[in-house]
Amino acid sequence: MNTPEYIKSLQDRASAVLESRLNFTGHSERLVNAIHYAVHGGGKRIRPLLCYASAEAVGGTLDKADDCACAVELIHAYSLVHDDLPAMDNDELRRGQPTSHIKFDEATAILAGDALQSLAFELLANAGKIDPSSSLEMIRILSEAAGWKGMVAGQSLDIESAGKIKNEEDLALMHRLKTGALITASVKMGAISTGLASTTSLAQLETFATCMGLAFQIKDDILDVEGETEVLGKQQGQDQSLNKPTYPAILGLEEARKRMLALFEEGTQALDSFGMNAEKLKGIASYIIERRH
Amino acid sequence: MNTPEYIKSLQDRASAVLESRLNFTGHSERLVNAIHYAVHGGGKRIRPLLCYASAEAVGGTLDKADDCACAVELIHAYSLVHDDLPAMDNDELRRGQPTSHIKFDEATAILAGDALQSLAFELLANAGKIDPSSSLEMIRILSEAAGWKGMVAGQSLDIESAGKIKNEEDLALMHRLKTGALITASVKMGAISTGLASTTSLAQLETFATCMGLAFQIKDDILDVEGETEVLGKQQGQDQSLNKPTYPAILGLEEARKRMLALFEEGTQALDSFGMNAEKLKGIASYIIERRH
Repeated sequence: MNTPEYIKSLQDRASAVLESRLNFTGHSERLVNAIHYAVHGGGKRIRPLLCYASAEAVGGTLDKADDCACAVELIHAYSLVHDDLPAMDNDELRRGQPTSHIKFDEATAILAGDALQSLAFELLANAGKIDPSSSLEMIRILSEAAGWKGMVAGQSLDIESAGKIKNEEDLALMHRLKTGALITASVKMGAISTGLASTTSLAQLETFATCMGLAFQIKDDILDVEGETEVLGKQQGQDQSLNKPTYPAILGLEEARKRMLALFEEGTQALDSFGMNAEKLKGIASYIIERRH
Repeated sequence: MNTPEYIKSLQDRASAVLESRLNFTGHSERLVNAIHYAVHGGGKRIRPLLCYASAEAVGGTLDKADDCACAVELIHAYSLVHDDLPAMDNDELRRGQPTSHIKFDEATAILAGDALQSLAFELLANAGKIDPSSSLEMIRILSEAAGWKGMVAGQSLDIESAGKIKNEEDLALMHRLKTGALITASVKMGAISTGLASTTSLAQLETFATCMGLAFQIKDDILDVEGETEVLGKQQGQDQSLNKPTYPAILGLEEARKRMLALFEEGTQALDSFGMNAEKLKGIASYIIERRH
């Protein structure tokens, strides 16, 4: 298997499916433009990649995973739009482009984020290729991962915590919620979409996802210290300057890197019983910790 | 039937169910407090009332409608929190209390709204008493009513339109999306939750709901002109001062009132074939156009 080609093909698939699912005009042109802007602005499509590769890890095909891959990316896209708002992280640039509230206005950015969240659940509810029980299970997983006990709680802790998080345990909790919950949801939904996932394999996939969610965040923190502004598409060192807690700040750069590699080992080992079926999913895990932005 | 008592009992039921479904603490205390504040701040619970009475209109019981009644109220609550934000309507008072971003802060208000939306779908996905196909159908209805082709589109038009809407047709479209979509969703979900709704009765309920959604909005506009600030819990004449289009402004007060009554007639007539079963639902329709706040 050629991992970069595999990843590229899945990223292209995710973008094409998003394009087809968002092929609407609606009553408010400004709102629809802002929805498209938030979704089609690129990005690595990490969560869809995990959905697809997880579906293949349990012996399924990609087509059934299309809707959950799309839905989780919509939740991710909405969270970026809202996190960038002046009242939150106040970011004016994302992936080298103006953030939504700069490109449009604050009200439109808030509304586009709200509509993206509804749309994620709309897609899952309309996923025709999936049986109703599995669709409902995916909606349960995604709504719980996105909401008060998942991503939103993590963002709330992140905002509350500025300057307060001093130890690895608190930092890990914040990231487990803010980033980890959605990554774990991606992996679980991809497997469930196939109708082929056993309870055992779901538990193993969850271990893998929990490890890789945290490894993903440590990599982000390392990139923020090391990365070049040009490649990142945002100001390098931004987390430091906002006094946001990071792994390198708490553990030191070398120890942070070791922690990330240990999580990668633990995560990929959890997939041992999947044999060759999980090679692609492991390839994506490697991509997560080796990426340059 | 004693309508005021029936309405009071359903309002109490909705508030109690919301209380039980939101009985959690979570990781971010501030977020959870803001969620509770937005939901337990009172309100008329009109959407839950419609869910419950619609369930009874098709011969069902109240218990199966609990989760959709709750879910639609959460969507309504989130929309109020976001609509009140400085970037949107910039309201500091709602039902005589500080709005969420005043009571907490802007970031917390945005996040609480986001979490309330996720929670609505979480409740529907976990509604144990409903069969999976009906749950999925309710999620489809609610997500479509809430999102880019429903409520959010209406709010976007409302913001874009300040000073631009000059005729009844455009005004009706804006309200059909902003308020009507969720009211129609309430009526349809209530009926579907029972598992007893035929295609014909759903179509008749939809006609009723479409009429009453618009009548509800006209009543709101009339109250804004006539109501006393004390009873409304907000500044009377606020819509006028914001240059928001209203029915009395476009049609005149008397004509607006006639339009509202005509919609009430058309809506309740659509329920004729339901016989006595729809008496309570008609009672709620009367309450909608007769309320004093």
